[in-house]
Amino acid sequence: MGNGIMGKNEAFLRVSAILVLVLTACLVGLNTQTKTIIFTIQKKATFNDMDALVILVYVASVAAGYNLLQLLYKSSASVCYGGKFEGSETHNIYMAWVCFLLDQIAVYITVAANTAALGASLLALTGEEAFQWTKVCDRFTRFCIQIGGSLLCGCVACILMAVISSVSAFKLFRLYSPKLFLRLKTR
Amino acid sequence: MGNGIMGKNEAFLRVSAILVLVLTACLVGLNTQTKTIIFTIQKKATFNDMDALVILVYVASVAAGYNLLQLLYKSSASVCYGGKFEGSETHNIYMAWVCFLLDQIAVYITVAANTAALGASLLALTGEEAFQWTKVCDRFTRFCIQIGGSLLCGCVACILMAVISSVSAFKLFRLYSPKLFLRLKTR
Repeated sequence: MGNGIMGKNEAFLRVSAILVLVLTACLVGLNTQTKTIIFTIQKKATFNDMDALVILVYVASVAAGYNLLQLLYKSSASVCYGGKFEGSETHNIYMAWVCFLLDQIAVYITVAANTAALGASLLALTGEEAFQWTKVCDRFTRFCIQIGGSLLCGCVACILMAVISSVSAFKLFRLYSPKLFLRLKTR
Repeated sequence: MGNGIMGKNEAFLRVSAILVLVLTACLVGLNTQTKTIIFTIQKKATFNDMDALVILVYVASVAAGYNLLQLLYKSSASVCYGGKFEGSETHNIYMAWVCFLLDQIAVYITVAANTAALGASLLALTGEEAFQWTKVCDRFTRFCIQIGGSLLCGCVACILMAVISSVSAFKLFRLYSPKLFLRLKTR
C-alpha cells in the first residue's frame, strides 16, 4: 500500500471524485423547470440563467476529466514500469511535483466554483431587500431543490479532491529529508 | 533554514498573510457610500447590505487571528525549547498534524468566503436579466470599486495561505519514510 505509483486508496479516491463531479455537472446541467406565468406565456428556468451555475458545470466537467487523465496516466505508468518505477527517483520527483501542483490548482478551482455557485444560489433563495432583488426560488421550487442537491454533491467532490491533494502532497514531501531543507533522503 | 520550528520563510509568509487579511477586512468593513436618491431621501451602501460581504469580513478577521496565534505559539515554542525541540519527534509529529489540518481548514474557508463574495459582487455588477435583478454598481460606483480592490486583496491572502498550507504539509510529510507507508523515518 502506498508503494506503487498509485496506491489502491488513491485510485479509489479519484474514481469517487470523478463520479461525484460528473453527478454534480449532470444535476446542474440537466435541471430545467417550466412555469406558466400568464395564460400561454411560459418561463423556463435552466442553469444558463445564472453565470455561477454555468461556470460550475464547466469546472466540474473539466475537474472530472482531469482526474480521469491522472487515473489513466498513473495506471499506464504502473503497467509499463512495473514495480521498478518507484526506484527511478529523479523522474519520480518531477512527476510528483507536477501532480502535486496540478492537484492543488484543481482543488482550489473546484472549491471556488462551488462556493461562488452557493453564494449566488443563496441570493436567489433569500433575495436581497437592499437591492430590491426578488426571491426566485418561490417560483421555481423544484429547480432550486435540485440545485441545492447538486451543490451538496459539489461539496462532497471538494472534500474528496482536498483529500486527494493531501495524498499527493504526502507522496511528494515524504521523499525529502526531515533534517536538511529540500534535500532528498536516501531511505 | 527549515530546521527551527518556524523557519524565517514561514514567519514572513504568516506576517504577510495577517497584514493582507486585515487589509481585506478593513477595506470591506469600512466601505460606505451615501447617495441622495430624491430630495432629502438618502441611501447608504455598506457591507451589511450583502451577506457574502459580512461573511468575508468575519472570515478574514478570524483567519488573521488564527495566523497570529500560530505565529505566537511557534515563536514561543522556539524560545522555550531552543534548538532542541526539533529532536522530540513524538511531540513534533502531533503538532505538525494539528498545524497541517488547521492550515488546510483555514485556507479552504478563506477561499470559499472570498469566492462567495466575488460571485455575489459580480451579480451586483452585471445584474441578472432573467431574474429582473438590477445592476447596483451603476448607483454606487466608488463603493463597488473599493469592494473590487478588497476582493483582489482577498485573492492575495488566499494565495499566501495556500503557500503556508503547502509549507506545513511539507513539514509534516517529510517526517515520513518514502518507502514504508506512514512509517516515520530515522534520517
